[in-house]
Amino acid sequence: MGNTFGQLFRVTTFGESHGGGIGVVIDGCPPKIEISETDLQRELNRRRPGQSKITTQRKEEDRCEILSGVFEGKTLGTPIGILVRNKDARPEDYAEIADKFRPSHADFTYVAKYGIRNWQGGGRASARETIGRVAAGAVAKKILSILYSDFEVVAYVAQIHGVIANVNRSAVKMKDVETNAVRCPDAAAARKMESLIEQIRGEGDSVGGVIECVIRGIPPGLGEPVFDKLEADLAKAMLSLPATKAFEIGSGLAATRMRGSEHNDPFETRGGKIRTATNNSGGVQGGISNGEDIYFRVAFKPAATIAREQRTVTSSQLRTKLAARGRHDPCVLPRAVPIVEAMAALVLCDHALRQKAIGLSVDRSEASSDEIRRRGRS
Amino acid sequence: MGNTFGQLFRVTTFGESHGGGIGVVIDGCPPKIEISETDLQRELNRRRPGQSKITTQRKEEDRCEILSGVFEGKTLGTPIGILVRNKDARPEDYAEIADKFRPSHADFTYVAKYGIRNWQGGGRASARETIGRVAAGAVAKKILSILYSDFEVVAYVAQIHGVIANVNRSAVKMKDVETNAVRCPDAAAARKMESLIEQIRGEGDSVGGVIECVIRGIPPGLGEPVFDKLEADLAKAMLSLPATKAFEIGSGLAATRMRGSEHNDPFETRGGKIRTATNNSGGVQGGISNGEDIYFRVAFKPAATIAREQRTVTSSQLRTKLAARGRHDPCVLPRAVPIVEAMAALVLCDHALRQKAIGLSVDRSEASSDEIRRRGRS
Amino acid sequence: MGNTFGQLFRVTTFGESHGGGIGVVIDGCPPKIEISETDLQRELNRRRPGQSKITTQRKEEDRCEILSGVFEGKTLGTPIGILVRNKDARPEDYAEIADKFRPSHADFTYVAKYGIRNWQGGGRASARETIGRVAAGAVAKKILSILYSDFEVVAYVAQIHGVIANVNRSAVKMKDVETNAVRCPDAAAARKMESLIEQIRGEGDSVGGVIECVIRGIPPGLGEPVFDKLEADLAKAMLSLPATKAFEIGSGLAATRMRGSEHNDPFETRGGKIRTATNNSGGVQGGISNGEDIYFRVAFKPAATIAREQRTVTSSQLRTKLAARGRHDPCVLPRAVPIVEAMAALVLCDHALRQKAIGLSVDRSEASSDEIRRRGRS
Amino acid sequence: MGNTFGQLFRVTTFGESHGGGIGVVIDGCPPKIEISETDLQRELNRRRPGQSKITTQRKEEDRCEILSGVFEGKTLGTPIGILVRNKDARPEDYAEIADKFRPSHADFTYVAKYGIRNWQGGGRASARETIGRVAAGAVAKKILSILYSDFEVVAYVAQIHGVIANVNRSAVKMKDVETNAVRCPDAAAARKMESLIEQIRGEGDSVGGVIECVIRGIPPGLGEPVFDKLEADLAKAMLSLPATKAFEIGSGLAATRMRGSEHNDPFETRGGKIRTATNNSGGVQGGISNGEDIYFRVAFKPAATIAREQRTVTSSQLRTKLAARGRHDPCVLPRAVPIVEAMAALVLCDHALRQKAIGLSVDRSEASSDEIRRRGRS
Repeated sequence: MGNTFGQLFRVTTFGESHGGGIGVVIDGCPPKIEISETDLQRELNRRRPGQSKITTQRKEEDRCEILSGVFEGKTLGTPIGILVRNKDARPEDYAEIADKFRPSHADFTYVAKYGIRNWQGGGRASARETIGRVAAGAVAKKILSILYSDFEVVAYVAQIHGVIANVNRSAVKMKDVETNAVRCPDAAAARKMESLIEQIRGEGDSVGGVIECVIRGIPPGLGEPVFDKLEADLAKAMLSLPATKAFEIGSGLAATRMRGSEHNDPFETRGGKIRTATNNSGGVQGGISNGEDIYFRVAFKPAATIAREQRTVTSSQLRTKLAARGRHDPCVLPRAVPIVEAMAALVLCDHALRQKAIGLSVDRSEASSDEIRRRGRS
Repeated sequence: MGNTFGQLFRVTTFGESHGGGIGVVIDGCPPKIEISETDLQRELNRRRPGQSKITTQRKEEDRCEILSGVFEGKTLGTPIGILVRNKDARPEDYAEIADKFRPSHADFTYVAKYGIRNWQGGGRASARETIGRVAAGAVAKKILSILYSDFEVVAYVAQIHGVIANVNRSAVKMKDVETNAVRCPDAAAARKMESLIEQIRGEGDSVGGVIECVIRGIPPGLGEPVFDKLEADLAKAMLSLPATKAFEIGSGLAATRMRGSEHNDPFETRGGKIRTATNNSGGVQGGISNGEDIYFRVAFKPAATIAREQRTVTSSQLRTKLAARGRHDPCVLPRAVPIVEAMAALVLCDHALRQKAIGLSVDRSEASSDEIRRRGRS
Repeated sequence: MGNTFGQLFRVTTFGESHGGGIGVVIDGCPPKIEISETDLQRELNRRRPGQSKITTQRKEEDRCEILSGVFEGKTLGTPIGILVRNKDARPEDYAEIADKFRPSHADFTYVAKYGIRNWQGGGRASARETIGRVAAGAVAKKILSILYSDFEVVAYVAQIHGVIANVNRSAVKMKDVETNAVRCPDAAAARKMESLIEQIRGEGDSVGGVIECVIRGIPPGLGEPVFDKLEADLAKAMLSLPATKAFEIGSGLAATRMRGSEHNDPFETRGGKIRTATNNSGGVQGGISNGEDIYFRVAFKPAATIAREQRTVTSSQLRTKLAARGRHDPCVLPRAVPIVEAMAALVLCDHALRQKAIGLSVDRSEASSDEIRRRGRS
Repeated sequence: MGNTFGQLFRVTTFGESHGGGIGVVIDGCPPKIEISETDLQRELNRRRPGQSKITTQRKEEDRCEILSGVFEGKTLGTPIGILVRNKDARPEDYAEIADKFRPSHADFTYVAKYGIRNWQGGGRASARETIGRVAAGAVAKKILSILYSDFEVVAYVAQIHGVIANVNRSAVKMKDVETNAVRCPDAAAARKMESLIEQIRGEGDSVGGVIECVIRGIPPGLGEPVFDKLEADLAKAMLSLPATKAFEIGSGLAATRMRGSEHNDPFETRGGKIRTATNNSGGVQGGISNGEDIYFRVAFKPAATIAREQRTVTSSQLRTKLAARGRHDPCVLPRAVPIVEAMAALVLCDHALRQKAIGLSVDRSEASSDEIRRRGRS
């Protein structure tokens, strides 16, 4: 259980780091969306290992194959099956630790839960699992772009350890993010981050940081009251990513030191639309989008795999030591940027379809759909 | 949609702040659990308005009635319906704002979403909705206590605006929390918080803060890999609460400034069990509980309803002003403590049942499955 | 578990025959639908005991109260809570059988499943549970009427024991059905059925029969491929009703004796639309509606409760005898007619909303929505 | 949507008849179950085309590959991905009908629903889709055999057109079924059926019939009250199969002509257990298994694809004719037998896990929970 995400745009992933491959099934994709393996590959390449000198040097091509659901370049409305074969696996890197519980990894908890462990790598807990999310996210982005002409999701590294970027959240574009290997749009900070990551790698250690994400062009009305609030689903989406420790929407933790009179976002009329003068809400009020930019921050811990020797125990409760031999990321954030975007797109696409389900009937009752659309979108 | 929470222990809430009442249906509750209206009422009273001078002075008794699913004091295994009637409603407090969008409330977004608004108060977005969550949480706590003899969930106010409490997270008990109206176990800080809240109320303003929650006695193995990670479901649960802006599990944001060698929790053997020497993971690794204390923090914004005059617009896009007339909480945190506990219990109870379905967890907790059967039935 | 039906139009029922009451929560109802307690009551009265001399003489008013989700006569988009209080309960009718397992009732299986039993009547297995379904069905019918101007669902008794009605399935209207107490539109057969039921009641026995249901005005395109085929969801809906033993869609069992060349429904053009010349498919092909009348048949067994003495055992495995003392229906079919209609409406309403979720995006891709609508509907 | 089946044992299928392949993801499979490609292949071979002279002569090997979720021969508890590549596709068989709607096929309804059609064969509506169900069913059977030592599911052809088999439902075994190509355990009837099918094929036509299925060894307690009754889920499972038109549980349609005093199954004590003297209930009472054999019947229509010329229309509403050129089954029942078994196993496995979640079922089955644990793990 727990391998499916979404209510209407339903994404089910499968696969371990070692074995036949990693895949995803997307159920509920609307028909006649143009989608190709090239579209998916573009996003998968941003996630791929070995893409720059600051990521792991494992050579994984991560070539995807669309198995079903697309015909003559268009979605059929039927489930889209996508498969990426596993390659360049070196189980021998792991043989030594087959019986050891790596600190802050999922080795121990998987054994506790299932009584069995695929010791050839991270198994299902490996970040390779996110391949399916990124592929599905590429489809979700496409749908959102069709539904909302101004739709845009931009994630970027905002902090690595003590280095904090200075980014204009309202203006930053994906091309600004992709200018450097760290995926930080502040060039000066990016250089510092890159040096820091190289240094940390040299020390056999790892660092964490913060990814910020801004979503533009979402009309008012997405998100469900009560349990499936938009920020609740975003929080779940982000905390379901490996290595994440915190989620902040809008003002986030800073809100705890503000007064209501400072924090409230006054409504005003701008460009003929109802807008808020400030955006501490982060684009969501009462769990529902209000038409402003949606933005949030995700905290990542330093990667658990480090070259330094650490103490731990074996499954027989014997004290032991271990040091990672594999080729690992000293900092997961640069490669996590497209993953954060993908999860954000999955959440929004699901809520967009959910809103469509209740939305058409309105225009058959008294309120015209035009009015709704006017309020909602324009 | 979006009014149901949980996969196996399924909680569906209904009701607006004004109308017939607020209720909840719990589907999937195991049979033969002793439960009474008194059990529920105890928790509901902790959430109730008017319980102290620093909360709203609305007089709502919030008496609950169990409509179904309990027979001769025990659960039947069938859905438990619970109803709390609405009372002391003063729609006239709201008449004036029927056409105005209150800043940072859900008035605007509900209209954008549904094209209709119950203007007599917060409607479905009112914090009254959480009554159903608290009632269901009381049932979940009971089940968890039966399954895990050391189970305990303790939430408390850790920060109000600039006042930060000093709390021993490993030792704090619910009775420590209930010693003062703020629900902060640090008595000195509690006094400062109380003064601050009174002062802020006097100024017609509001403040936010942080609630911390610790869960003890959960065996290793709860939580699902990938999307339904334990921390992901906790994050969703907390961000689904009104006025929340951030969630941190374990080390949280602080992790972003640590190195892997500092942050990793080494495994060791303690008391014959595999334990971690530190607990930056917050009791969850790879989305699955590891047997350590689970702890997290939730940030609340200052309440949106303030007595001070604010500018806004009407639904006809005309500029206007408004000032809250109703009786409101200047700080929602003291009453939110039992709500945070309830949501935590719902998440854990659901995952406990999910783990039972695949068969291994029970005999890995200290309590033997026989004992569980004995307690659960007799 | 198992008390929720539907994916987007989600209906959760609760309540036992004895206890606080019977209720339902509808989540996912579109906003701005006009709905009142009168609308619901009209359908509930068709299901109510004591409505004619051939039904049970229990006096249950079954007055419903809308607790939430409706404001000033219109749905809010939030969950609609509906409650019907239990009245006229006579637990003493059941005291004698508290320890006996009534043949072909759910007494034994509930104990086997839950280890506990509400012996004061049928508990959750009572047909009273269907009150919630009928109330929700009334809302679903309203939505379907708004979406599809020609929508109509008509169920009727087609057979009681050996008496078979002669009904023109294409023309029968609800008013024809409501002309007699049996709810059989063939007046001559209805008279025979009524006599038969009276006679059977006199003999302390019971009879079963067949309800047929026809749904008109559904456009092509509702229903999902593979598991959630329209006929699969209808079959589940019908077999979830108490006392049902079989379901046939379209040609049903008769299809097993036909050849493909006889059974296939040739396509033709009629009134400018693509239609089938015959309708052995029952309005569904490949799990998806094809625009023709959808029709199906549901078989009901004779009611399990009979006045005649029967042998059985106690929970201590002792042989015993019992004879029903309560006031029961010798034939459940007349009151089951509105229940069959309600379940059919729930299935179709859910699929209508599901189809809307994928349907709007199409018109933003190459194919215009007009084209789809033209093909699909007109 | 609609491509996932089950609540806890969740099966998601994907794939069209033409394209990359057909697959399935099983989420929620308990860990440490021994499973291999050989186990799956055994069942897939029973479903495979070309296995005998009375089935289609298409040569499809249908070799399955387990992509994930199994390690060193045992399930990991993580999703099991299974893929069968498409081979021997002859799209040219379909080119001619790309624009024609085949009578009683899903061509028209898919276009109506999605506005697009994979014309190279049946697409998603092809019976090839059931490959995923059969593979998942093989896993479900294995789990059920571990949970319930006497578990057995046996389906067989009970009727082809007018030829009715005489089968002792209580005694029939799978080996009796597999003795002939028709999968009918009555040898004399099987011979007649085989001749009939050959004759019908010669006439370019097709025939339908009835498959009966009996499930033994299920303890009392499986199935949920109200919507997810065991027979409701079985009905849905069966009506979700291509070409099915009716479902009967236990006495089925025959119940409509019985009186309550005949139909009720008296309880008695047999072998120290509470049993029913007769089994008109079909092993299910109030939606919950009662420990008796569960049996049901499924009606299949004659296959829609026939060699005879038929009239139909094109998507431009022009009259036309068509005759199937491909290699097709004149009667789908022999190959549908393992599919019916698979769906039955999916339903029961799901309900078995659901029952484990609430805690009581295991110790009510004959097998002790200890034994289950022993088998399940070691």
